[in-house]
Amino acid sequence: MTSQQVRVHNLTVSRDGYAAGEGQSLERPFGHADLAELMAWILGTASFPGRTTPGGSRGVDDHLAREFHRHVGAEIMGRHKFGPQRGPWSDHEWTGWWGAEPPFHTPVFVMTHHERPSFTLADTTFHFVGGEPEDVLRQALAAADGKDVRLGGGADTVRQFLDAGLVDTIHVAVAPLDLGGGSRLWTSHDELTDRYEHDVVPGRHGVVHHLYWRE
Amino acid sequence: MTSQQVRVHNLTVSRDGYAAGEGQSLERPFGHADLAELMAWILGTASFPGRTTPGGSRGVDDHLAREFHRHVGAEIMGRHKFGPQRGPWSDHEWTGWWGAEPPFHTPVFVMTHHERPSFTLADTTFHFVGGEPEDVLRQALAAADGKDVRLGGGADTVRQFLDAGLVDTIHVAVAPLDLGGGSRLWTSHDELTDRYEHDVVPGRHGVVHHLYWRE
Repeated sequence: MTSQQVRVHNLTVSRDGYAAGEGQSLERPFGHADLAELMAWILGTASFPGRTTPGGSRGVDDHLAREFHRHVGAEIMGRHKFGPQRGPWSDHEWTGWWGAEPPFHTPVFVMTHHERPSFTLADTTFHFVGGEPEDVLRQALAAADGKDVRLGGGADTVRQFLDAGLVDTIHVAVAPLDLGGGSRLWTSHDELTDRYEHDVVPGRHGVVHHLYWRE
Repeated sequence: MTSQQVRVHNLTVSRDGYAAGEGQSLERPFGHADLAELMAWILGTASFPGRTTPGGSRGVDDHLAREFHRHVGAEIMGRHKFGPQRGPWSDHEWTGWWGAEPPFHTPVFVMTHHERPSFTLADTTFHFVGGEPEDVLRQALAAADGKDVRLGGGADTVRQFLDAGLVDTIHVAVAPLDLGGGSRLWTSHDELTDRYEHDVVPGRHGVVHHLYWRE
């Protein structure tokens, strides 16, 4: 057995299963979803990957937030996590939502059918890759230098990898709100229990953490 | 930075800081401590490393219990974790407390001043090594094949490695009982907060999980 795993961390969905709302735009990466409400459980933790100020809460939520970086050597993300554009890249000005110091610190593979040169911000290099999940994963595993690959989302990308049987462990936080539409991960958290072991851990702010892994 | 870490997992101590009682013997690996009482938080979990029957509880305790195996490529343990004998090995009949299938599944380095040949049980090989913590750790890191090294205890061994500054992450479960004597890890869980970040997570059966890591 290889020691490299494919992991989903901190993917937050509404009670009705949406990881983002409808109408993504430059101003609203999560569409009509209220980011602060959806992500309340993690935004206040000490270890929130995008945190730029000291302080923050500890406890179960923070413990799970910290898993984001542990033993991760590369990330795969869908194009809609990287930005709101659709179709061919009209320019290369857009470098993601994360500013000059993205919180990844590893190679990141952005899945897109449209070619674009790689570029580097601080210690994160973004590669733009087409092909099936298996092809993208092969490149990410090679780049991860023996460490794990984080599957960063969004929901569509995670579902593609789940359908291909490529995901080893999954952490989904279910937030206490409904979105009614958008980018859907699942209809029910029971959908994965035929293929995965399942653990449920309650967190703060009404969030419920669902953990899945393969024996 | 190397990606290999030195980790302590599921080390359970009493409120007064003892990981085992006094009077270790063949019949009582934890001396006068009541093993079922001290370890109540983990013995009933689905992922308890020594579990041989199906079932068991999930939740925070089980999540922490599962960390035991994740990305671990070798264990270091003190001689008293391996067995109750003292002094030179009088025979090689004793092969540890764990029967024919030890729950480690990696090389295990038993720290002892007395020579003994290595032996293998199922997929666990026990090596008997002398020297300082740094020397033992060097061998364990090499054997771990890029993965982490678990520091398995007991308390004396963990303290040696802490004093040498060799431990990266620590999970100590504090059980709701006092032992009054035995093998002591600490006087207070605050002793490590000058060197480590610190998180506290309550579990079942009155246990409190203390998590430490270096930024």
